[in-house]
Amino acid sequence: MNAPAKEPILDIAHFGRMELMTPKLDRSLWYFKDVLGMEVVATAGDSVFLRAYGDYATSTLKLTAAKDAGPGCISWRAVSPQALERRVKALEAAGLGIGWADGDVGRGKVYRFRDPEGHLMDVYYEEQKYEAPDHLRSTLKNLPQKYTGRGVGVRRLDHLALMAKDVGKNREFAMDLLGFRLREQVIYNNGQTEIGSWMSCSAVHHEMAYVADIKQGNSRLHHFSFWIDNREDVLRAADILRENEVFIEAGPSKHNNSQAFYLYSYEPGGNRVEIYSGSYLVLAPDFEPVTWNEEERGPGVYWGSALPPSFIEYGTPNIAAPVAAGAEKTPVFDPQ
Amino acid sequence: MNAPAKEPILDIAHFGRMELMTPKLDRSLWYFKDVLGMEVVATAGDSVFLRAYGDYATSTLKLTAAKDAGPGCISWRAVSPQALERRVKALEAAGLGIGWADGDVGRGKVYRFRDPEGHLMDVYYEEQKYEAPDHLRSTLKNLPQKYTGRGVGVRRLDHLALMAKDVGKNREFAMDLLGFRLREQVIYNNGQTEIGSWMSCSAVHHEMAYVADIKQGNSRLHHFSFWIDNREDVLRAADILRENEVFIEAGPSKHNNSQAFYLYSYEPGGNRVEIYSGSYLVLAPDFEPVTWNEEERGPGVYWGSALPPSFIEYGTPNIAAPVAAGAEKTPVFDPQ
Amino acid sequence: MNAPAKEPILDIAHFGRMELMTPKLDRSLWYFKDVLGMEVVATAGDSVFLRAYGDYATSTLKLTAAKDAGPGCISWRAVSPQALERRVKALEAAGLGIGWADGDVGRGKVYRFRDPEGHLMDVYYEEQKYEAPDHLRSTLKNLPQKYTGRGVGVRRLDHLALMAKDVGKNREFAMDLLGFRLREQVIYNNGQTEIGSWMSCSAVHHEMAYVADIKQGNSRLHHFSFWIDNREDVLRAADILRENEVFIEAGPSKHNNSQAFYLYSYEPGGNRVEIYSGSYLVLAPDFEPVTWNEEERGPGVYWGSALPPSFIEYGTPNIAAPVAAGAEKTPVFDPQ
Amino acid sequence: MNAPAKEPILDIAHFGRMELMTPKLDRSLWYFKDVLGMEVVATAGDSVFLRAYGDYATSTLKLTAAKDAGPGCISWRAVSPQALERRVKALEAAGLGIGWADGDVGRGKVYRFRDPEGHLMDVYYEEQKYEAPDHLRSTLKNLPQKYTGRGVGVRRLDHLALMAKDVGKNREFAMDLLGFRLREQVIYNNGQTEIGSWMSCSAVHHEMAYVADIKQGNSRLHHFSFWIDNREDVLRAADILRENEVFIEAGPSKHNNSQAFYLYSYEPGGNRVEIYSGSYLVLAPDFEPVTWNEEERGPGVYWGSALPPSFIEYGTPNIAAPVAAGAEKTPVFDPQ
Repeated sequence: MNAPAKEPILDIAHFGRMELMTPKLDRSLWYFKDVLGMEVVATAGDSVFLRAYGDYATSTLKLTAAKDAGPGCISWRAVSPQALERRVKALEAAGLGIGWADGDVGRGKVYRFRDPEGHLMDVYYEEQKYEAPDHLRSTLKNLPQKYTGRGVGVRRLDHLALMAKDVGKNREFAMDLLGFRLREQVIYNNGQTEIGSWMSCSAVHHEMAYVADIKQGNSRLHHFSFWIDNREDVLRAADILRENEVFIEAGPSKHNNSQAFYLYSYEPGGNRVEIYSGSYLVLAPDFEPVTWNEEERGPGVYWGSALPPSFIEYGTPNIAAPVAAGAEKTPVFDPQ
Repeated sequence: MNAPAKEPILDIAHFGRMELMTPKLDRSLWYFKDVLGMEVVATAGDSVFLRAYGDYATSTLKLTAAKDAGPGCISWRAVSPQALERRVKALEAAGLGIGWADGDVGRGKVYRFRDPEGHLMDVYYEEQKYEAPDHLRSTLKNLPQKYTGRGVGVRRLDHLALMAKDVGKNREFAMDLLGFRLREQVIYNNGQTEIGSWMSCSAVHHEMAYVADIKQGNSRLHHFSFWIDNREDVLRAADILRENEVFIEAGPSKHNNSQAFYLYSYEPGGNRVEIYSGSYLVLAPDFEPVTWNEEERGPGVYWGSALPPSFIEYGTPNIAAPVAAGAEKTPVFDPQ
Repeated sequence: MNAPAKEPILDIAHFGRMELMTPKLDRSLWYFKDVLGMEVVATAGDSVFLRAYGDYATSTLKLTAAKDAGPGCISWRAVSPQALERRVKALEAAGLGIGWADGDVGRGKVYRFRDPEGHLMDVYYEEQKYEAPDHLRSTLKNLPQKYTGRGVGVRRLDHLALMAKDVGKNREFAMDLLGFRLREQVIYNNGQTEIGSWMSCSAVHHEMAYVADIKQGNSRLHHFSFWIDNREDVLRAADILRENEVFIEAGPSKHNNSQAFYLYSYEPGGNRVEIYSGSYLVLAPDFEPVTWNEEERGPGVYWGSALPPSFIEYGTPNIAAPVAAGAEKTPVFDPQ
Repeated sequence: MNAPAKEPILDIAHFGRMELMTPKLDRSLWYFKDVLGMEVVATAGDSVFLRAYGDYATSTLKLTAAKDAGPGCISWRAVSPQALERRVKALEAAGLGIGWADGDVGRGKVYRFRDPEGHLMDVYYEEQKYEAPDHLRSTLKNLPQKYTGRGVGVRRLDHLALMAKDVGKNREFAMDLLGFRLREQVIYNNGQTEIGSWMSCSAVHHEMAYVADIKQGNSRLHHFSFWIDNREDVLRAADILRENEVFIEAGPSKHNNSQAFYLYSYEPGGNRVEIYSGSYLVLAPDFEPVTWNEEERGPGVYWGSALPPSFIEYGTPNIAAPVAAGAEKTPVFDPQ
């Protein structure tokens, strides 16, 4: 019978926005707007703000011109002003806080911090809901924006995967300070090497993963991901990506870990973007994390071809560094 | 900007089990096992316990032989033992509690109560996770049970809709005492007549709805619902139901309210069962309920034919009573 | 055992082009181009020529400005020059021929004729294959044109249904003079009233249907249809049509006759257009036509709601005439 | 403008039946019946006859116990008794005929012959249509058999691919003596090495392919294939195959050649079986075959991972012979 559960931290509501640095802002904008079918909602300085048709927030993707591709600031929404205060206190106490800043595009104040690896993040509560202009108003009252039928038509921001030199340390940070719950892990070498950990602060299977950076890079992004409702939509997305000559690295196929139906492409700036469906919701309050060893993990897929080597080596910013000694023996892993 | 949110009650994890009364146990069993593709996990007295392949709990459907069709006990899982205690206290204080009982099929003690309409419910925390026997073990480590490929292949229990003579009173009960959050409402007569309210205690769009019983019945069931991953799965389900000569009342089609892709059939005992996909997750902590008036609600569908009159009149147990005076003017509504 | 088959006429290859008259050319063009995702390939006088991405011919839809909606010239491609000559001789001999004319948009000479009802048709052999300009060239060498991902994305012209005062007479014409093979029929009144007949000159289930015009109109169009590869594509089309406020008359749902998964909308000019998938190929040389009587035909659907009354009354050009005496008792039929 | 077309031979209607030799009859039967969802219609001697739910013929698959896996007799249905006579005369004249034999399971007399490679084939006209017993009668009048919802649910036999030491010689045989029309070819070394040729005698994209046997085997089978209506059905099939621990060699993914959405598994006897959807119909009477060189062919897929080496080496019967000198440099090809 279940042991009494420790009361969990339920202060973070969901992944709120991805900031993506790109050396090719115009081409990246083409990818997200014309190919994936997102809408531009605002432009400010070197940044363009976009949204997917099902996102309730005004913007969930911020594209920022930069010398190198990679992650910008990663945003998490708190469930309440009180929850925001609690998280800020915890981050400050841990010495990871940076401080308050003004939010942009209708967002209230945000508190900035870094994870142990060094990825920049913020947490906020105040958020302006999207108000569609007439030409983007849906005929469905409960849909924030018209489904335009242009391109892939991604529905909403889903999750991201970050590379880290020490997966365990960053995972513990996310669990202890932000309240992420662990969902699945890939652990090799008889339980000694934590290759990847998938976590969530909501019923969504994972909203953030940390995966080993076998090139020992610095605060890199593995990928981030958009949800789409049906597996057929992912297949259609592959057709559209190919017609637009966008590089598809892997998929459409089905992961074993997370059960997700995935498709990974590189947007023109070089960042890996996933189009994603399937997986499963986690509603059990005492969900037991699923762990995979070398044999169980295998090629990282439930069916379909093994993931390519680039999948464990490539991240943004891209680096020329060789795979770290010892890591080259590491079987493939797979951060969905 | 958002007003500071009141801290919500987050004590209920999810809809845990549907007990269904049936005057034709054998035929109902055929429907759920052979047509929908569920597995029988236990039998006790007049009851048979079943599960869908993706359910983590041992059993999510209890079929009980009875003179009339209708709802049996409706079960809710608490997020922790402490949460369970809090809910029990609140229910007792409200005078709606019945008392503790032993759970069945690996479930710990349950606390029984009734909603204002009189539907029997319970809340519990201790739950034994399903351990698949060899022939039902999945090749996917994170899937509780093999996907057998038999029949429709419903994935997991999703939600239910209950009929009530006073929708508002029961909605308030669910929100105040159990912590349900309101998602959508159909309100007619310039905001005076609450026709239906859809609520959830999780990110699932709705886990329970109350809809007006226009025949003024007593504690009736409108329907309960199983999730399936893709819209195509719902279309395939329609083919299977027809080949098995199961009555399809409405769908496959798409609701406006909830955006769900639905298919309603009557199991042989007479209860309405939905096969369900699509809809949308609610992750916003300050989600604003969506309301629909007569004009907006229209035929209850986003596309496809209007819902038939039976959809607002029929529930279980079925009653011969006429539609209540005044209610016959009520436009169609649609409890997903 | 099979009786020796009479050698069939195999002179017509397929349905080649639909000419559609529209009183709202600009709006009709918006519908086919922006909503259905077709491409404009040429403009000449009052006509605009379009194509679907998978059509091998340069153009398969000719939109022509006119006072009333309705069918223009309906084109059939012959399998060879010799076959063309044979058909012309047969049509001339039957007194239904009009004469040779120049084809348009890269099409060679055409021979014009009328069916007994009076619908204008032509037959031709010479046809220029589509050569995509650079911006519409597919990355798939065997696909005539890029799949642009804009709107519904219909793949190819599939079939049409014509209204006739005498279904049998027109069916016999098509079978005897053009070599159509009969696939399915709806026959009421103990085999005495031919309500509709579905025929094809290829493995496609039906390329032309004649259905009873219960208003006794003159040479009207019931609908014409575009193919799309998956049922999910039809569901997605419904979402797109609704977001664009296009009237959906019926579907998405599944016919019993033809097994097709259908969606009927009215383009802005008033003509009924079907988006269509599923059905079945007919490869048997001795296929036995399937007939449906009143009871078998029922509501015209395999599942889903009955077809609406407009489905048997409305055609283009639209006429105010009442339903003919006697016809009002005719159960619904359904020309896919 | 099109050159006058030579009148084609239109004597073969379609691929009629696959005979498959298997060293594990019981396990092969399990695969086709329980996993793919086919029905057993008869047993005779060492053979079991099966059918897919949409096949109009009584049986389309004959499983025969044998020492080695591989193709048995490959059957083609003629369009008429006269067409049958014409083909027999042509085969006799070419010295490839074997002679008449009695057909089995309701099939009339068959004429046996061999292709130049040596594969055993027959051609026939008389065919008994399937009459479903009560428990397998569909509620759809135009569907030959109930869709049972068991396992994958393949719909109908679609095509096969045969290995040959000389692809060109066998292709010419099929075109000249049986009337197959060429659809696509993979030709390497500046048009000198014919790697594979896909042909059909109907509107189905290809009903037979010949592909190079780079191990110089004798009359081997590459694979044969069943149609299923939607891409989603192929994905579902992959889930079912994995749950049943059937080896998946490649897919689900999309070929460039044929545009098909494919999934290849090995049935327990060792023969490669494809589950197949998508592709495109060929209705143009002057369709121009599409050829692919090394660069265009690439990895054999439109998207998704490259086909594995086994895909060009493995056939049945399996042989230990090394890849022929020179052939090891041959880029991957892909017989759908």
